[in-house]
Amino acid sequence: MSGKRLRSDLGWSTVDRIVVRGKDLPGEILGHLNLGDMAFLELTGRAPAAPESKLFNAMVVTLVEHGVTPSALVARLTYLGAPEALQAAVAGGLLGLGSVFVGSMEGAAKLCSEAFSAGEPDIAALLARYRRVPGLGHPLHKPVDPRTVRLFEIARETGYYGKYCRFMERIAAEKRLTLNATGAIGALACELGLDWRCVRGLGVMARAVGLVGHILEEAREPMAEEIWQRVDDEASAHLKPAKR
Amino acid sequence: MSGKRLRSDLGWSTVDRIVVRGKDLPGEILGHLNLGDMAFLELTGRAPAAPESKLFNAMVVTLVEHGVTPSALVARLTYLGAPEALQAAVAGGLLGLGSVFVGSMEGAAKLCSEAFSAGEPDIAALLARYRRVPGLGHPLHKPVDPRTVRLFEIARETGYYGKYCRFMERIAAEKRLTLNATGAIGALACELGLDWRCVRGLGVMARAVGLVGHILEEAREPMAEEIWQRVDDEASAHLKPAKR
Amino acid sequence: MSGKRLRSDLGWSTVDRIVVRGKDLPGEILGHLNLGDMAFLELTGRAPAAPESKLFNAMVVTLVEHGVTPSALVARLTYLGAPEALQAAVAGGLLGLGSVFVGSMEGAAKLCSEAFSAGEPDIAALLARYRRVPGLGHPLHKPVDPRTVRLFEIARETGYYGKYCRFMERIAAEKRLTLNATGAIGALACELGLDWRCVRGLGVMARAVGLVGHILEEAREPMAEEIWQRVDDEASAHLKPAKR
Amino acid sequence: MSGKRLRSDLGWSTVDRIVVRGKDLPGEILGHLNLGDMAFLELTGRAPAAPESKLFNAMVVTLVEHGVTPSALVARLTYLGAPEALQAAVAGGLLGLGSVFVGSMEGAAKLCSEAFSAGEPDIAALLARYRRVPGLGHPLHKPVDPRTVRLFEIARETGYYGKYCRFMERIAAEKRLTLNATGAIGALACELGLDWRCVRGLGVMARAVGLVGHILEEAREPMAEEIWQRVDDEASAHLKPAKR
Repeated sequence: MSGKRLRSDLGWSTVDRIVVRGKDLPGEILGHLNLGDMAFLELTGRAPAAPESKLFNAMVVTLVEHGVTPSALVARLTYLGAPEALQAAVAGGLLGLGSVFVGSMEGAAKLCSEAFSAGEPDIAALLARYRRVPGLGHPLHKPVDPRTVRLFEIARETGYYGKYCRFMERIAAEKRLTLNATGAIGALACELGLDWRCVRGLGVMARAVGLVGHILEEAREPMAEEIWQRVDDEASAHLKPAKR
Repeated sequence: MSGKRLRSDLGWSTVDRIVVRGKDLPGEILGHLNLGDMAFLELTGRAPAAPESKLFNAMVVTLVEHGVTPSALVARLTYLGAPEALQAAVAGGLLGLGSVFVGSMEGAAKLCSEAFSAGEPDIAALLARYRRVPGLGHPLHKPVDPRTVRLFEIARETGYYGKYCRFMERIAAEKRLTLNATGAIGALACELGLDWRCVRGLGVMARAVGLVGHILEEAREPMAEEIWQRVDDEASAHLKPAKR
Repeated sequence: MSGKRLRSDLGWSTVDRIVVRGKDLPGEILGHLNLGDMAFLELTGRAPAAPESKLFNAMVVTLVEHGVTPSALVARLTYLGAPEALQAAVAGGLLGLGSVFVGSMEGAAKLCSEAFSAGEPDIAALLARYRRVPGLGHPLHKPVDPRTVRLFEIARETGYYGKYCRFMERIAAEKRLTLNATGAIGALACELGLDWRCVRGLGVMARAVGLVGHILEEAREPMAEEIWQRVDDEASAHLKPAKR
Repeated sequence: MSGKRLRSDLGWSTVDRIVVRGKDLPGEILGHLNLGDMAFLELTGRAPAAPESKLFNAMVVTLVEHGVTPSALVARLTYLGAPEALQAAVAGGLLGLGSVFVGSMEGAAKLCSEAFSAGEPDIAALLARYRRVPGLGHPLHKPVDPRTVRLFEIARETGYYGKYCRFMERIAAEKRLTLNATGAIGALACELGLDWRCVRGLGVMARAVGLVGHILEEAREPMAEEIWQRVDDEASAHLKPAKR
């Protein structure tokens, strides 16, 4: 192999050492950083200060669990066929976190980061450009998403309620739509200086946690097979001979 | 739909409320539980006490990052082709967490939980039955895995070093193999009373966090395309006409 | 990079040539081999003769479509969240083809190939060893799976009904269970000389074809969102306050 | 469950019947349709006539194998960690078939179908709108992609070389870029009357076939572990202490 040098700064190990982002894993990380802090370390290269830790953990915790979503159904239906491969059931559940659901976090963070890239944003111009603003609107939580309220409260407490939060709130008011949790998290990711390109990943890692919960519940109290039977019966009823 | 009742206890929401495992998400969870605690809540139905939180977070943090593993390579190579679908790159990276790598955590937890299901375990009989004991041996970290040392230290501090830890250590000594991090975590999961069926999931959720880190690094400093070119050139060199 | 030489014999390309398994793709494959033949070429290194082509295509075609299975539901529910990533919806649908459903093809092929590895198989000894014989039994198609009947008919026509088919039929008779389609295909794969390690893959490639059909139907006449709403309502009904 | 009626027309089964798209699977499909024909049946609701079968099979066969691509690497690296879950290795390999690689087929088909939705297309206007036209350009195959040449030859033979093919060729000439295989297949899909929303799926199903070939080769002559070791060594060389 030749050409461009391959290089990663995330971690390395030798016989007796394991180092992540420049920190000794056993000595400086285990027992010191919680799982959210570790995510922050991975994404920024440094451990969070206490206010950052509080806010960042709240952001990711927000998206862990939201009941029996399509994502949870996928994990459960996959586990039904391959219980020996729990990792595949979690992975399956993550695959639908695209443009319709969790992906809007990325859109909101990108919008925030681009809007301020050249000074104060021109909101009227922005609204003209976006047919749908990511992070606005919610089918159920309206006019207010209680997660947004609480996240911005924590942001104020920790000193991270700033221009990106205000910006998203103004746009939501202008559009008369709920600023949903993904919009709030997109803005807060910018307040914390995160790269918008990893923001969808906050939702993905959070949901991976929640999906393990769903799979454990499925193992104990299954619903996947019953759902399958009901849907299959109903969906093909118009095709089958009258009496089976 | 008829038949068996569908039922999930994990979460529900109405217009103004979101409840997870019986706790109000905005009021009782956000700002109070970190991401590891939230995982504990999902898997056990209750928030961890402080010693449990410390130990459980250390266990999952252990497996977040281990450098450029096959799992990280998969995430990066997937992102190369579908950068618009970060969730698919993370999911891809999780798919290889099977019997060879992370799956041994599940095996170790199952072994521990079965060994004590009918009183004191008969270690000689167990060793006769298992050709390969899950959680033992490591290609690099030998004779000691520094993560195991540290995790058991935290277990002692928090009061969770108990019979399952001793059991795995005795088996490792008997087999003259390293008790690796997955074996230690399997035992500790039993000390915390977790169901062995979710233990592989601890590694899966941890790795989801680490993979987002790899994808962000790939977005900034790519290596996937270079790897592809090198491998493709070398692998087909014996087939191609002499001078291209 | 050093160490072991990387080597693949499957395909290569230069500016003006694309060669697969030693055959010129445009000149010798396109217009000459159908999709099933191409799969046969990939797995054996040679194009099938006409009888092999007929039998092999029938085997894979068998597993393309079986109505609204868990696998189809997963693809549809994934597409609901990420319609921009059809590939992820197909991939999601494949993830559940594990030990419970399609994986039994692999088990049956492995059983057949091992049973004859040292002369005539001792059926009594085999049955004593296997608690569950892969490829036997079907929840719906009993006492006879009509796909097995037809596949063995084609095998007779093409001259590939042989010792592996007879072996599986004897075992099914002994156990008084249906020889299902996956058991028949496992046996036929051995008749064709395929390596048992790729046999689960026949079901996987077939299902990939069928899942594209389901996703197209979902795009035109969706059911995923309705399923989600129904399941979510029912599953959390016992948790929600009386009147929402 | 209530609300919208769930309905699927793809397939159904009873104790002794399995019907796909209105055809009896054992009696009318097995032994009569090859795997490509079966895909055509799934996507259009009818079996292809002989010229359609020849063209459609050539289109999907084109994308089965292209050497050691990122997609093949992902499948191999996934199999390394989870050899018990071949389906997950195939699924992993499909996940990268996004906007960069195979997704352009969908884009080309969509472009073709929209361009003619209101009479003759205005090519200058179209080119002004698209920064990058999907299906044009290839890093290796230039100025001509030999697959396109052959596919259009088969299209002429079978009577399906028409306005969509001419349209894509004019655009390629205008942009002075190769009309690559994905652009040709996108146009041909429109000639056959396929819905553009399933066109990416042609590449996905084809690649599923090819990936099973790669996994079988990996089982026999592995390269994944060697690639991992090389990349890991090189990528972290700048971080590790001088002598390990």
